[in-house]
Amino acid sequence: MTEPLIDPTMIAPEPLDAVASDPVTLGWMQGAPPPADKQVRFDDGSMFSFPQLRWAYSNMPQLIPTTTVTRGTGGVCPLPRADRDDLDAIECVPLGRSETMTWAQSLAANYTDGIVVLHRGHIVYERYFGALTAPQPHIVWSVTKSFFGTIALMLIDQGRLDHDTLVTTYVPELAGTGLGTATVRQVMDMTTSIHYSEDYTDPQAGAWQHGRAGGVLAKPEGYSGPASFYDFLRTLQQDGAHGEAFAYKTVNTDLLGWILRRVTGQRLNDMLSERLWAPLGCEQDGRLLVDSAGTEFAGGGLNVSLRDLARFGEMMRCGGEFNGRRIVPQAAIDAIRAGGDKGHFAKSDYVLLPGWSYRAMWWVSHNAHGAYCARGIHGQGVYIDPAAEMVIARFASHPMAGNANLDPTTLPAYAAMAEHLMVTG
Amino acid sequence: MTEPLIDPTMIAPEPLDAVASDPVTLGWMQGAPPPADKQVRFDDGSMFSFPQLRWAYSNMPQLIPTTTVTRGTGGVCPLPRADRDDLDAIECVPLGRSETMTWAQSLAANYTDGIVVLHRGHIVYERYFGALTAPQPHIVWSVTKSFFGTIALMLIDQGRLDHDTLVTTYVPELAGTGLGTATVRQVMDMTTSIHYSEDYTDPQAGAWQHGRAGGVLAKPEGYSGPASFYDFLRTLQQDGAHGEAFAYKTVNTDLLGWILRRVTGQRLNDMLSERLWAPLGCEQDGRLLVDSAGTEFAGGGLNVSLRDLARFGEMMRCGGEFNGRRIVPQAAIDAIRAGGDKGHFAKSDYVLLPGWSYRAMWWVSHNAHGAYCARGIHGQGVYIDPAAEMVIARFASHPMAGNANLDPTTLPAYAAMAEHLMVTG
Repeated sequence: MTEPLIDPTMIAPEPLDAVASDPVTLGWMQGAPPPADKQVRFDDGSMFSFPQLRWAYSNMPQLIPTTTVTRGTGGVCPLPRADRDDLDAIECVPLGRSETMTWAQSLAANYTDGIVVLHRGHIVYERYFGALTAPQPHIVWSVTKSFFGTIALMLIDQGRLDHDTLVTTYVPELAGTGLGTATVRQVMDMTTSIHYSEDYTDPQAGAWQHGRAGGVLAKPEGYSGPASFYDFLRTLQQDGAHGEAFAYKTVNTDLLGWILRRVTGQRLNDMLSERLWAPLGCEQDGRLLVDSAGTEFAGGGLNVSLRDLARFGEMMRCGGEFNGRRIVPQAAIDAIRAGGDKGHFAKSDYVLLPGWSYRAMWWVSHNAHGAYCARGIHGQGVYIDPAAEMVIARFASHPMAGNANLDPTTLPAYAAMAEHLMVTG
Repeated sequence: MTEPLIDPTMIAPEPLDAVASDPVTLGWMQGAPPPADKQVRFDDGSMFSFPQLRWAYSNMPQLIPTTTVTRGTGGVCPLPRADRDDLDAIECVPLGRSETMTWAQSLAANYTDGIVVLHRGHIVYERYFGALTAPQPHIVWSVTKSFFGTIALMLIDQGRLDHDTLVTTYVPELAGTGLGTATVRQVMDMTTSIHYSEDYTDPQAGAWQHGRAGGVLAKPEGYSGPASFYDFLRTLQQDGAHGEAFAYKTVNTDLLGWILRRVTGQRLNDMLSERLWAPLGCEQDGRLLVDSAGTEFAGGGLNVSLRDLARFGEMMRCGGEFNGRRIVPQAAIDAIRAGGDKGHFAKSDYVLLPGWSYRAMWWVSHNAHGAYCARGIHGQGVYIDPAAEMVIARFASHPMAGNANLDPTTLPAYAAMAEHLMVTG
């Protein structure tokens, strides 16, 4: 559900490429009913297998129950169009390679399901592939985290949330557990230290247990573990001192979601709707995966249309203003752009992200353009490049979870797009 | 899921009234997490118990997976407002009683969750109660059937569906089963004769087996019956001659859904979106409950916002035209308004609906106003009164399933509203 640490050995031996694994060509879920070998199901786990996941990630609400992030009954804030035909040919050199690759080639290399590029608020490029269409919500996995990190900063700005206090101020149920000794800020920046592995190659990893507890993964016969996301959080044990190193663990965001629910008295779908979806003038409802007790998967459960993700990114690029109004306070944007502790980040193992940091559930590059982004496994992301006045929103269904598998082609392609837009205006 | 035959003994002994059972007051699913005794869940069946169902019927997609009936990316067709304050006081005499009741009182008597009255296409009255808000989709149960009956008539009009042929023309898998010997028309008008009971007071009734097969109801431990809606249809046996009597059985509509999928090659959500949601300019997405193989519950799985249900009704009232375009052919509207065989209908047991008939999944009153309606258990409905130029869309969560429990207050109230609007203009 989240981003594993880099493990080059995880790169699969020649999976089907983007064209060969196209979910429409392969006929997943076609027919009435689909033949047994063309079904993508929750109960047998096939929805999380490649290439079936290429269909599933565009169709999550029909596999797992969801709450609705309603856009309400207001108007849509249009994204003006200025489509360009010079962008597919942009070239870049992927990390670790010598030959160039075009922008169009990079999309296939990353198993892109949909991508939109905004320049100065205009759509200059928009493409959909495979099972995805414009109005369809796609799972964004850990991009979800950045939505809730942003809302946490909004509440801090309003004085309603104190990030220096212990999480038990808001969630006393965590007293005596590994997360109960952390501050809100440590949770927001993922510097808690707990026994819990995000290594998806280990079948015993906490990340899998967390998913099963929340019902995002099917529970095996005779399952007797924690029965909800919150029950799972209470089982976690501390592993050394909090606040000393960045350690990417999805459970932090589920705890943040719990805190936000306690502070606002709102469910997470209503919180997103009131604070972001309706003000942004989104064109589609979002969806949040829920567990059997109706608790939303704050760490990775959001499904959103591509253009709505772009609206969110554009609002961030514009310093929190969009659709003719202030939506996020400038202080929250400034906090994210300033980033987190680079020393903490360097203690983790993101060799492809040198000099980066993590702050309030955002990934901050600290590059010359001041770029920062939200990232989710299998290639989900929104990338904000303030200097280039560019926002890129992308959905993908790469065979491998970790973005380390996508960054070598993604980051140089995005940098080349930014340069091209800056030069050509 | 569907409308049982009338059984006056089913009227419960003094359930909580509408105020006492208000789902917000009772605190269902409030808190993070909700206390165990305030949870409304799928796995323990509590979502189908009263009063929990008062919360659940406004929140189905977070309990059961759904496909999305997208409204697409087009504009909303506004419903102009002409709110009136003289309607709550309208009086009627409920069937079987002597004292009058006001319109406002009838809403509480029927455990109304939301109701909108259109007169000449303008909203003259709109109210929401309990757990429902304007943008929120509410389960419509068997109102779903009328959507698919209408689409079937559209396809007949186009010459793409033949209603005189056997269903096996489209679904050869049903050869040798009870439904395989029926014509499409017999399925559309529910004059098939099969061993299958819609009596919800019988725990062995086919309706419950059907729901469990499709996963709309939790499967008991060790369940080994049919694993999908379509698997269940293949188990049904014939019970006498088809075509001689109206017999309300939800499985007919699931079979019709199967036929429509075969004729169009589309999934039911896309079929609804392309033919109705987008042309109607709906303001919200619909949702369709699905089984574990992704098959939509054509017999009762649609969730829709109140105003969008009103749009559908208004289009029907206007002879198939709405939003500046023809959406349903006049011939389809005429076929529904003409109704089905009254003799067939009289053989069933709807003592509160004398002289009515059933045609293409619509209930036709044959009254002086030419009223007809779509109906779903627990009080869902859209009621079209051509003479009064009135459309009423209503969602409810009555403790009892059968509309026989609501008709005594509903039908006189609707008639009084129609008269009042005709008199006062």
